[in-house]
Amino acid sequence: MSDTTLNNLEPLDKESLRKIHAYWRACNYLAAGMIYLQENPLLREPLKPEHIKNRLLGHWGASPALSFTYIHMSRLIKSHDLNAIFMAGPGHGAPGVLGPVYLEGTYSEIYPNKSEDLEGMHQFFKEFSFPGGIGSHCTPETPGSIHEGGELGYSVSHAFGAAFDNPDLLVTVVVGDGEAETGPLATSWHSNKFLNPVRDGAVLPVLNLNGYKINNPTLLSRISHEELENLFKGYGWTPYFVEGSDPEVMHQRMAAVMEHCVNEIRKIQQAARAGGALVRPRWPMIVLRSPKGWTGPKEVDGHKVEGFWRAHQVPLSGVKENPAHLKQLEEWLRSYKPEELFDANGRLIAELKELAPKGVRRMSANPHANGGLLRKALRLPDFREYGVKVDKPGQTEVENTRPLGVFLRDIMKLNPTNFRVFGPDENTSNKLDDIYQVSKKMWLADYLPEDADGGELSPDGRVMEMLSEHTLEGWLEAYLLSGRHGFFSSYEAFVHVIDSMFNQHAKWLDISNDLAWRAPVSSLNLLITSTVWRQDHNGFTHQDPGFLDVVVNKSPEVTRIYLPPDVNTLLSVASHCLQSTDYFNVIVSDKQKHHQFLGMDAAIEHCTKGIGIWDWASNDQGVEPDVVMASCGDISTQESLAAVCLLREHFPQLKIRFINVMDLYRLTPESEHPHGLSDRDFDSLFTTDKPVIFNFHGYPWLIHRLAYRRTNHKNMHVRGYKEKGNINTPLELAIRNEVDRFSLAIDVINRVPGLNVAGAHVKEKLRGMQIGCSHYAYEHGVDKPEFASWKWPH
Amino acid sequence: MSDTTLNNLEPLDKESLRKIHAYWRACNYLAAGMIYLQENPLLREPLKPEHIKNRLLGHWGASPALSFTYIHMSRLIKSHDLNAIFMAGPGHGAPGVLGPVYLEGTYSEIYPNKSEDLEGMHQFFKEFSFPGGIGSHCTPETPGSIHEGGELGYSVSHAFGAAFDNPDLLVTVVVGDGEAETGPLATSWHSNKFLNPVRDGAVLPVLNLNGYKINNPTLLSRISHEELENLFKGYGWTPYFVEGSDPEVMHQRMAAVMEHCVNEIRKIQQAARAGGALVRPRWPMIVLRSPKGWTGPKEVDGHKVEGFWRAHQVPLSGVKENPAHLKQLEEWLRSYKPEELFDANGRLIAELKELAPKGVRRMSANPHANGGLLRKALRLPDFREYGVKVDKPGQTEVENTRPLGVFLRDIMKLNPTNFRVFGPDENTSNKLDDIYQVSKKMWLADYLPEDADGGELSPDGRVMEMLSEHTLEGWLEAYLLSGRHGFFSSYEAFVHVIDSMFNQHAKWLDISNDLAWRAPVSSLNLLITSTVWRQDHNGFTHQDPGFLDVVVNKSPEVTRIYLPPDVNTLLSVASHCLQSTDYFNVIVSDKQKHHQFLGMDAAIEHCTKGIGIWDWASNDQGVEPDVVMASCGDISTQESLAAVCLLREHFPQLKIRFINVMDLYRLTPESEHPHGLSDRDFDSLFTTDKPVIFNFHGYPWLIHRLAYRRTNHKNMHVRGYKEKGNINTPLELAIRNEVDRFSLAIDVINRVPGLNVAGAHVKEKLRGMQIGCSHYAYEHGVDKPEFASWKWPH
Repeated sequence: MSDTTLNNLEPLDKESLRKIHAYWRACNYLAAGMIYLQENPLLREPLKPEHIKNRLLGHWGASPALSFTYIHMSRLIKSHDLNAIFMAGPGHGAPGVLGPVYLEGTYSEIYPNKSEDLEGMHQFFKEFSFPGGIGSHCTPETPGSIHEGGELGYSVSHAFGAAFDNPDLLVTVVVGDGEAETGPLATSWHSNKFLNPVRDGAVLPVLNLNGYKINNPTLLSRISHEELENLFKGYGWTPYFVEGSDPEVMHQRMAAVMEHCVNEIRKIQQAARAGGALVRPRWPMIVLRSPKGWTGPKEVDGHKVEGFWRAHQVPLSGVKENPAHLKQLEEWLRSYKPEELFDANGRLIAELKELAPKGVRRMSANPHANGGLLRKALRLPDFREYGVKVDKPGQTEVENTRPLGVFLRDIMKLNPTNFRVFGPDENTSNKLDDIYQVSKKMWLADYLPEDADGGELSPDGRVMEMLSEHTLEGWLEAYLLSGRHGFFSSYEAFVHVIDSMFNQHAKWLDISNDLAWRAPVSSLNLLITSTVWRQDHNGFTHQDPGFLDVVVNKSPEVTRIYLPPDVNTLLSVASHCLQSTDYFNVIVSDKQKHHQFLGMDAAIEHCTKGIGIWDWASNDQGVEPDVVMASCGDISTQESLAAVCLLREHFPQLKIRFINVMDLYRLTPESEHPHGLSDRDFDSLFTTDKPVIFNFHGYPWLIHRLAYRRTNHKNMHVRGYKEKGNINTPLELAIRNEVDRFSLAIDVINRVPGLNVAGAHVKEKLRGMQIGCSHYAYEHGVDKPEFASWKWPH
Repeated sequence: MSDTTLNNLEPLDKESLRKIHAYWRACNYLAAGMIYLQENPLLREPLKPEHIKNRLLGHWGASPALSFTYIHMSRLIKSHDLNAIFMAGPGHGAPGVLGPVYLEGTYSEIYPNKSEDLEGMHQFFKEFSFPGGIGSHCTPETPGSIHEGGELGYSVSHAFGAAFDNPDLLVTVVVGDGEAETGPLATSWHSNKFLNPVRDGAVLPVLNLNGYKINNPTLLSRISHEELENLFKGYGWTPYFVEGSDPEVMHQRMAAVMEHCVNEIRKIQQAARAGGALVRPRWPMIVLRSPKGWTGPKEVDGHKVEGFWRAHQVPLSGVKENPAHLKQLEEWLRSYKPEELFDANGRLIAELKELAPKGVRRMSANPHANGGLLRKALRLPDFREYGVKVDKPGQTEVENTRPLGVFLRDIMKLNPTNFRVFGPDENTSNKLDDIYQVSKKMWLADYLPEDADGGELSPDGRVMEMLSEHTLEGWLEAYLLSGRHGFFSSYEAFVHVIDSMFNQHAKWLDISNDLAWRAPVSSLNLLITSTVWRQDHNGFTHQDPGFLDVVVNKSPEVTRIYLPPDVNTLLSVASHCLQSTDYFNVIVSDKQKHHQFLGMDAAIEHCTKGIGIWDWASNDQGVEPDVVMASCGDISTQESLAAVCLLREHFPQLKIRFINVMDLYRLTPESEHPHGLSDRDFDSLFTTDKPVIFNFHGYPWLIHRLAYRRTNHKNMHVRGYKEKGNINTPLELAIRNEVDRFSLAIDVINRVPGLNVAGAHVKEKLRGMQIGCSHYAYEHGVDKPEFASWKWPH
């Protein structure tokens, strides 16, 4: 059906049109009311300055189109018995969402003091954007929201994440034309190539071209209709346009177009589910071109407001002081005729009340938007069965992430419809490719014959690969928030691409944890691999272990960081993370071959403690050590141990304690993080006065930031990545950053009282070996075999 | 001219075709040679295992199409006397760039030991992707590169940044179809709405659909031709397709299409420059669909390689051990017939040599790609003339960023063609809008009548606003690297969106500083505003001061961080930053009204020192203080000073020293950062044993990370943002994070020996006031006037 045909349809009879418009008037009244009114919520007396809030905060501009879309979808939910949720890309337009959520009763059910009466409305208005009150974005406190829309760019990827593996679900997502300019949003339109109409639900994007951002026109509203249509056809969508400003006409068009889209979606799904060859559908989407601040003041003080950027926030700002503005506000508010919409008690009148869907069909009460309610614990195989045998520590080398790939494969097998694995074209590179034995990479774009040999592609796959960390993170976040499980692996340096998404998700979890009605969701599990120490040919751009520095700024209630040194610890910690809820778990583990140190039992014990003395590498049994060698991270641990070997060779009497830190937060004071060690335990591990040579995977100062309050902090000498790198061999890169065995051993000689003088010749020798290593690397392009093949002596 | 017509043209005569193909064979030979050969560079003896490098590193897959594009552009440079530079989006395909750069002689000019002879080629091959050698991306060491392509996503925005205000320049940018999946790249296609054909140069994107990423097909290569064409038409481009694999056919097509594009570009420019109404051009672009690893091994061990993802890196990996692979490699290398291409000395034969452009017309020698050569210092007005008068500190409130906007306005006036201001739709919100008096926002999309009142749009504007921090940062980076100046302002929380771009640019600067032939470029000046402490209605999502924690991880040689507390210090530091070179300057200053503390002379002195005692706020003159109150940041300084007032009122005998930190790196040891204070100076400021109550703008632990080695560190008690926030009033947000005046005063009472007992009742009183503040805020929605209007007493 063409746009033109659709535009001539009038699916709403007079009565339906009158009612839906009245319902929308109620929404708009609430949106404006919550921005302005602290008293006199239903204007039952003339509006006076004292009824106006002291501070006017909130975004009017995006609100009317949000509620417009919301209630039209609600209409279809009722008529077609749809299972739908709603996401507001312009989440700062929360008044446009809070209005319908309140009107359908959910808000009052969750927050009884915002009841459906005059006093409840009074509270609702007063607390909006008020200290300690209702946020002005679609925050976690908003019933039905799993997308806050505070930081822009992620609405479409979130919508898809919720739709995956929810075949009955329809996710309506309003995309603001401001948000549409961001990079993450611009590529997320391609998510339609990753949605399988048989087993996944549907996403109906509504691109709202209200034309303006905070102070500027938007790009997509200022290109030709033809370009806009081409763009979305190019993205693989079938766009339908609803354009105008006359409410009656727009209600009819929106009703017609939205119904058509829902029918198209159903047809696509039915055809796909009937079997036969799967083709990539050109899903419908809606372009809703409507004025910014629609139905609000047309002009203020002679300047255009409705349909211009001035409508972005508070269109009339001087109302408390300026009687003309107050009058204009009153006229505006009364234009919605609240007296026709709410009964004597202040409750929406019955004939409108019944327009909304009932119970969990209300988008604000749909359990998919409170995914913990639907979440089933993951069925996990016993991770111990995937471990490597370690007879003696430091003898064998294994790619640390490969057994994890086997473990993930079997998790996928046991949880075929509620577990997905995400990676930006890197699961094979990250050595997790065993997973393809059970689940291929989801692919619904064109398929070529050569894909059969090594493509690992399938429309049935649940491994999600696209070269966009933003899109993957967005998909995963919403997949979890809607009650499922997932695992994300990414190159270390480029995890910074999603720093801000991490921040926002951590904030979401932090707030959600305080909301009793939000059921726990699965943690977001992020494996950071292809780490800084093994970028032999990618060089400097690929060396950045700083994501952890971003993580530690967020709430200790929701952040966890693990650096397992080998395969068995990695498996143990991964299994733990996959069972946890409401955390952002970060695991750092390189993909290359590394030494294995702990057998499975020892690994489990070590992971349980999170930090511990490795007795087999220590010789301080029964006495106070002369020095503590501590390590955190795979390569760091290897070099620390190799340094211990060098030291033992030259100073057999030196008492060395070897500590490995697996759970980074163990270093923090217990008052600062739930995993923090008590000072007593910390002191008993690190001593109160002995030198500690701490070899860290990341930037060294992070350890100081975590441990600066500890008794022995002044003796902690931390080594880590110091931003010195190029296309170096592994050992040479370590040397340049002084995390290598020679530098560490020299550190010990320098720091242990008495050793410095006696050890002068040893230092010289070590320096010679170090220089020899560098020379060898620069000559041969590889590390000197005797060091590259280092083993712990037995 | 249609695609079909173009495809039937054969612009190259037989001889030209033979030569350009021979030149390309030379490029491909070099690309393969640098990946494999450590000896026998021209295969003048049979290939043996010992000729092969010990480690095979590099990316073959993208290389042939890069050199193909490079040499076809070079052809047009010669025939049309173009001024062009080249950017390789798939910068990891550096062999495809290094080859032509070496062949046109620039490489040998800059690195004489990689001479144009057998020994030079030997060195060139050997050092590629070799420790300490030639990087395998288009690193700063690569002549002609201002785009490394290590992290993907920024090639198109970089291309536009270089083209702005360079009317004669043509920037050829190859975009990989992998990179094209990233968010930043996906939105950067819209940059064409910000390029003015009159005063700006042109960008010719070549989207190389080689079909594959490291292990996956690419999205854009697996959608229909029609969708692809729609997509780019929708983005506002006119796409031309060059598709195939037969070199002869492809040379003719590329020559025809590229020449057509160059002619179209010239026509657009001529038409626009002839005057008349400016319409947004639909610039040409090229879609080059060619096999990945083009001309390389078709199959290896029975698996498809050319035209498949297996060609991504090293197509034949076992050559040193596997004689069959060695043989295949030799056949592959000899297929380019090096003996026909290089003379007896190993130099490209003369008839090919002359194909390349000469001198600075060579893309590798174009000074626009070494912008410091072209950079002219900015003409700056005297910033002192923009200051505010401060008779007495702490009496008047001014929006801190507004005078900066006036200063920027006048800089724009004095530097009309080499200075731009960037902001994601936020210059007005950030109170910098005075700049529009001189330069509007660049806008070449549709213009509506209402824009005349408050739109501030013009195709001649040099204020760049788009809701994509990625695009802005990319534009600015390249604008600077090509020799110009700029200023970028952004909301604090969302600067994290470009964390990874900051990392990459800092790395670029760090390496460039070590290259004598790269002339200094202007610093990147980033104003972080709309800060954490004033997000009264945006709430938690908009509260994140953690960008500084990312910055401090990068090289101290290139990073600077300033937190000016008021207008005059902000102006002074901004003026300083705008004159500096080769830094990433970060300035943190909120846009709201704040107290003014320093008159202009005092501000200049304070900025020169970067840290200092504020005598007027201290009463320890001539004696050792009882306590040091330190502050860093605008709000932090206000609250610290207000705390001093409270303390003076109750403890007139208490000797307080007040220190303000403007230059954050002054806190670092001098061994760690050029701005670091000596320990002696630090101790004389902060004492060696008195309590220090440090009120910081950002996350408090950052101060510990910088100052943990200082003598008095154990007595430093740092307050800052602790991730506690919501829609709070300013004072309430401060209270929740304990950076408010009451918390700070209580801190002092707790920490100064003797004060705790005597001050018990004062603490109680302060706590009462604090609770009173909270109650007031929660009741009235604003801060209690007596605290909101706090002034420093005189």
